[in-house]
Amino acid sequence: MAAATIDVAGIGNAIVDVIAHADEAFLVAEEMTKGAMTLIDAARADQLYGRMGPGIESSGGSAGNTMAGIASLGGSGAYIGKVRDDALGGIFRHDITAIGIRFETPAATSGPGTARCLILVTPDGQRTMGTYLGACVDLGPEDIDPRVVAAAQITYLEGYLFDPPRAKTAFRRAAAVAHAADRQVALSLSDPFCVGRHRDDFLALVAGDVDILFANEAEICSLYQTDDFDTAAAAVRDQVKIAVLTRSAAGSVILAGGVAHKIAVAPVARVVDTTGAGDLYAAGVLFGLTRGLPLPTCGAIGSFCAAEIISHVGARPEAALDKLIASAGLV
Amino acid sequence: MAAATIDVAGIGNAIVDVIAHADEAFLVAEEMTKGAMTLIDAARADQLYGRMGPGIESSGGSAGNTMAGIASLGGSGAYIGKVRDDALGGIFRHDITAIGIRFETPAATSGPGTARCLILVTPDGQRTMGTYLGACVDLGPEDIDPRVVAAAQITYLEGYLFDPPRAKTAFRRAAAVAHAADRQVALSLSDPFCVGRHRDDFLALVAGDVDILFANEAEICSLYQTDDFDTAAAAVRDQVKIAVLTRSAAGSVILAGGVAHKIAVAPVARVVDTTGAGDLYAAGVLFGLTRGLPLPTCGAIGSFCAAEIISHVGARPEAALDKLIASAGLV
Repeated sequence: MAAATIDVAGIGNAIVDVIAHADEAFLVAEEMTKGAMTLIDAARADQLYGRMGPGIESSGGSAGNTMAGIASLGGSGAYIGKVRDDALGGIFRHDITAIGIRFETPAATSGPGTARCLILVTPDGQRTMGTYLGACVDLGPEDIDPRVVAAAQITYLEGYLFDPPRAKTAFRRAAAVAHAADRQVALSLSDPFCVGRHRDDFLALVAGDVDILFANEAEICSLYQTDDFDTAAAAVRDQVKIAVLTRSAAGSVILAGGVAHKIAVAPVARVVDTTGAGDLYAAGVLFGLTRGLPLPTCGAIGSFCAAEIISHVGARPEAALDKLIASAGLV
Repeated sequence: MAAATIDVAGIGNAIVDVIAHADEAFLVAEEMTKGAMTLIDAARADQLYGRMGPGIESSGGSAGNTMAGIASLGGSGAYIGKVRDDALGGIFRHDITAIGIRFETPAATSGPGTARCLILVTPDGQRTMGTYLGACVDLGPEDIDPRVVAAAQITYLEGYLFDPPRAKTAFRRAAAVAHAADRQVALSLSDPFCVGRHRDDFLALVAGDVDILFANEAEICSLYQTDDFDTAAAAVRDQVKIAVLTRSAAGSVILAGGVAHKIAVAPVARVVDTTGAGDLYAAGVLFGLTRGLPLPTCGAIGSFCAAEIISHVGARPEAALDKLIASAGLV
């Protein structure tokens, strides 16, 4: 087996974020579930955009954000996802390639436009999202380049990929290619409601195809249909090699080989916008794993990356994460 | 004369900003003049965009930013500027109308796309800009709605408007309409190189058509072709009713009626990105003037608005400026 030439290959919905501030009353009036990602159609996206405040646009998508974190940490990566050949698609492609991530998935030349995620940030820093999947529905198994996946130490899949109809097949193909090449497969559960939409699929994947699982408390509880975190943690710990469970301000725990490593959060002066916190935490852990670092160090890197991202508006790092973790003595 | 129903009407180049971090070496390699705005054509814009790092997109344009400040302060406003009927134009229109600014200038339906300003922010927080004017070149006198201008207490014109060929005529028409309605005309000199490109025009305007002039030190020195700020200040003080001269970290001075009011800068924890500092300072001063506040208070409001904008990436306010200045006891 050849050595991996790519640290992480990320596969996800290629999305441009539109981030705006909103108050709690706006979420109520628009019947949005606070903290969640809700799928919306094109008409609803236009309506919601027309009602929300001024936004800033930036490339997003859960796995895309994670790959931006990997790049900022000094890792190498590739991204697979589907944009349209339109202005927003051009922005997405520029931003991810500009940081050195390979992105060779061809853009759709017809059909819906590049996906948009309308993100409302409330004064408490929490984000609530409405996603119009647009061109993401065109991602299929033909977009999985087996050379890219086979060359990556870890293939990272976002759970949101189960929402567009054909991506599920792409997802399974990528996992099969990775395992055939003796690589690792990581999965993020993405969102508790996403887990609810695809619970049986996720349970089967976790039992059979996933080496490294990322989930927050609500997601892992949704997967095992329990209200109790410890029950959910006990259920998952023998299912995967590494289970990385995050609990927001309460830190995180990494379960592996019968051991539970508790990870503290990194300090942050003020939580401005939590968009991307989970994505960047995952980036830190994945980067640490590709460097063979001890799991507590992997978790600490994840915490530092999450702290950077929640200190400003937007889901991609503003600071150079490699310098940040070096100055913290983590690498 | 009817009472003004609009506080400020802003006329400017309607631009979407693309803001990225860059180091000093990048500016040198791209032969960009640090701190300045350079006009670039479509091919150079594509080239520079291809070379710069990942960006965040947000509505910009000097007068557009100022109008966003007026709205955030609780003032009423209208904006005149030209976008194309494309994705970026839709973003610009959404963002300025979402904050309550009237924006009724029809979009161009053919010709170049909506203008983009590629902004490189260096580690010191300074911004360096390359602007592709795109659809702005289509702004002409037919876009000046005399009812809007006549209804505004102050019509605010950005000097950058002298770069596209037909906007100069629009600019002069707006000034004539405003004065015929017994309103005030304000002008920002925008950029020292812009002043250099249009010095004779600006000198004539300042002598004849401008009631309130905004300029930073480099701009006012460029206007009067001197290296000495005091010489430039002495030259302008009898030319306009109010001359507002800014000196970055050294504060600002407002000259009016033979008196020089010195204004201190407002404290800011860390300068992240100076994009929009002058635009938001102008917003604060203009807002204060429309409320009949004393000039030192107008300047202090401007300083607070500038401090907010340089504390984060982007040229439009993230905080509610009305609450900010109220809590500072300025209104």
